[in-house]
Amino acid sequence: MHAVTLVNGSHNLGLDALDRGLAYGDGVFETIALQQGQVQLWQGHCERLTKGLLRLGLAADAAAASVLVTKLISDIQVAYQRFQAPDGVLKITLTRGVGGRGYAAPQAPQCTRIVSLAPWPAGRERLSIAGVNSRLCCHPWSVNSALAGLKHLNRLDQVMARNEWQDPHIHEGFMLDPEGYIISGVMSSVFLQQQGQLIVPLLDQCGVAGVMAREVRVIAEQAGINVIQGRINVAALLSADAVFMTNSLNGIWPVVNLCPSRSHTKSHAWPISDLTLGLQKTLAVNLLRQPLVGELC
Amino acid sequence: MHAVTLVNGSHNLGLDALDRGLAYGDGVFETIALQQGQVQLWQGHCERLTKGLLRLGLAADAAAASVLVTKLISDIQVAYQRFQAPDGVLKITLTRGVGGRGYAAPQAPQCTRIVSLAPWPAGRERLSIAGVNSRLCCHPWSVNSALAGLKHLNRLDQVMARNEWQDPHIHEGFMLDPEGYIISGVMSSVFLQQQGQLIVPLLDQCGVAGVMAREVRVIAEQAGINVIQGRINVAALLSADAVFMTNSLNGIWPVVNLCPSRSHTKSHAWPISDLTLGLQKTLAVNLLRQPLVGELC
Repeated sequence: MHAVTLVNGSHNLGLDALDRGLAYGDGVFETIALQQGQVQLWQGHCERLTKGLLRLGLAADAAAASVLVTKLISDIQVAYQRFQAPDGVLKITLTRGVGGRGYAAPQAPQCTRIVSLAPWPAGRERLSIAGVNSRLCCHPWSVNSALAGLKHLNRLDQVMARNEWQDPHIHEGFMLDPEGYIISGVMSSVFLQQQGQLIVPLLDQCGVAGVMAREVRVIAEQAGINVIQGRINVAALLSADAVFMTNSLNGIWPVVNLCPSRSHTKSHAWPISDLTLGLQKTLAVNLLRQPLVGELC
Repeated sequence: MHAVTLVNGSHNLGLDALDRGLAYGDGVFETIALQQGQVQLWQGHCERLTKGLLRLGLAADAAAASVLVTKLISDIQVAYQRFQAPDGVLKITLTRGVGGRGYAAPQAPQCTRIVSLAPWPAGRERLSIAGVNSRLCCHPWSVNSALAGLKHLNRLDQVMARNEWQDPHIHEGFMLDPEGYIISGVMSSVFLQQQGQLIVPLLDQCGVAGVMAREVRVIAEQAGINVIQGRINVAALLSADAVFMTNSLNGIWPVVNLCPSRSHTKSHAWPISDLTLGLQKTLAVNLLRQPLVGELC
């Protein structure tokens, strides 16, 4: 099984070296789990993608965004036929394409669509059971309320934070804003359990609005668990009863250790709570009801 | 005369759709004026590029950065031979290439080099004489001291700010930080003249360290003009005796008008000062002494 990449629906096509996605990070992307031919949380990914297309002006209105999404769905179906495996990592990227004068966008951008399917990474399910080790990253989030929440292509912060460690036993890193409040993992959303409630970071100044995080939040609220947005400092993190992280590929990862790092020299451990285990179970059931690739419309 | 683009030294090669430059903006770039076969301010561009390579870890040390720069110089010489014109816009992009697991960089990245030469834009010299019209942009700079100063590929802020206006009579926009301090133009550095001194924005939290701005600053200081870094709010901008912007393609652009916009409804005019004219003259002389493409080493 090999990775499949389609550019504007065509296999084995290189990207124009002058694409604005490369020049400026002028675009948006989604990373989606494909499981047993099902596109996990498609609706949520589609909504965030559409929001990004509109905010960046890659689509002039909802109708134009819908046209782009329809083309993407066709690409996904073609890629899936070539991929010949039920499980994989589906990545969708949409850029403003080539053109314009410098930073100025072309009047009628021809967006570039990139759809890739890569083999499902082995061994990650184990971490959902055993829990993961974490650290505090030094590189902070860039702050800008005008871009907060979007999954755009300006992701140098995540690259810089992730490259602070090489130790394969550390699975995730907490990223802070410049004031020292916890915003996210490098590739995940963060939940703290405190006295039976869940606390999630406010993402009004930076951060990505996680699709899996939203799903987990809905599940928690349906189970009668209160979910509060707030500013979380390191002391609050350490005093949490339990901590977990979520993302579209890993689902719910219990965080069991904070390992020493340059920005925090003491280690700390959290238990895996019954609340976390309960959410994992409900999530697994919910994810069984996702659309098949062929059912996307 | 057509544009020439080389990817890793090869003509007409598309970019790998999985390049990290596209996925994350994981790279740096320079835009350089080519005039009469001379590469303007090559040393300054080379220094900023090297600084970015080291900060982002695209090069492990100065020696590795130097190897990359040597390859770039070879690319520039090949591109120039194909280009067959003495004047143009030279753009250099270096990315971390393909690979790694998600945000984690590969252990030994194979950087992607993109060198392009495009025709020199017509009519810009006129603006250096007549002066340019400006506006205040609403979209703010993202704040992150860890990336401030670098010319990396995360440039969505500039795209968003530039797309706030379509009027071709407005040539540049002032970009502010979230606290309302002026940081730069969309594509330029900013200088205010106040009582015979020059004031430039502090770029410790955001902004790009302009290569042309550095040259102009050196020229000013050699002429006995004091250059002060400071926090500049809109009131300070409006009370300036004169204002100019600089970048590598435009040299020194006197700013003569601030046009009304959503974030500032009153128009304002500045004169073109003798100080600005004097700096333009000295700059023109200095730029006559730049290395030819064939002399780069």
